[in-house]
Amino acid sequence: MISTDRLRIYPFFGFLNPSELDAVAMIAEEAAYPKGQVIFKNGELAKSLFLLEKGSIELFYETPNGHMTQDVRQQILVGKINPGEVFGISALIEPYKMTASAIAISPCLVVETNAEKLRTLPEQYPGLDCVLYQQALHTLKDRLHFARVQFAVARNFLAT
Amino acid sequence: MISTDRLRIYPFFGFLNPSELDAVAMIAEEAAYPKGQVIFKNGELAKSLFLLEKGSIELFYETPNGHMTQDVRQQILVGKINPGEVFGISALIEPYKMTASAIAISPCLVVETNAEKLRTLPEQYPGLDCVLYQQALHTLKDRLHFARVQFAVARNFLAT
Repeated sequence: MISTDRLRIYPFFGFLNPSELDAVAMIAEEAAYPKGQVIFKNGELAKSLFLLEKGSIELFYETPNGHMTQDVRQQILVGKINPGEVFGISALIEPYKMTASAIAISPCLVVETNAEKLRTLPEQYPGLDCVLYQQALHTLKDRLHFARVQFAVARNFLAT
Repeated sequence: MISTDRLRIYPFFGFLNPSELDAVAMIAEEAAYPKGQVIFKNGELAKSLFLLEKGSIELFYETPNGHMTQDVRQQILVGKINPGEVFGISALIEPYKMTASAIAISPCLVVETNAEKLRTLPEQYPGLDCVLYQQALHTLKDRLHFARVQFAVARNFLAT
């Protein structure tokens, strides 16, 4: 577990009431990752909801190789995670499988909340799921915006 | 209003119970759009949550012109909506502003649910917001995947 105070300061958890925060802090653990470490891979079961406290993380997407003539898989940068941001949102969305890979691009300190336990907490704290979904929607919306801007920039290069 | 039976068959509304479905159908209206019609624009207040029944819709994103030497705005395709799909998800996410423009690329039949009324329904039907958020998360996740694939394809073209 980690201290509630440590969680409280982050916007994603800012809408939880004190007892909900305590419950989440109880099932959260700290983890450190060296530079270059893969934190999770595309397609894996989402075992945790992640909060980046220190360092930088990049989300990569592996291009499907179906349309290529050779069996070459490319890793494409699809997002960056900065301190204070939550990632691994798939922990809240069925079928709870990661849709991108996460790699520490500098030494990282991360808070990992047990996804399975988190998903059962609303039995004791009704409405907690609703607050988490709302926060997750904001995060996905931002991430979608980032992906669209990236695509627009790539298209501009193609057009010129 | 539209009939409950009409709404029931769509996956997005499939998790609502009969009385919730009735309540949503009460605040929903049918609308038809000719080919080429703009249904909503990027940045507008989200007045409705949309469900496409017939036709095809494309979501466009306008590139910011800040980085361009001329004041030229480009419309970039960022998503396609097929019959049975919900769009205008921003109606459920604060600050309730559309983040893409939607254009009918063929004659369209659409069900529009009043966004303001939809957001007050959970006062009468506790938990309805939670179900809608969950469905919205699935939709955004799919849309994010589409955007990432588009970007990956564009990058592949750039690399070759």
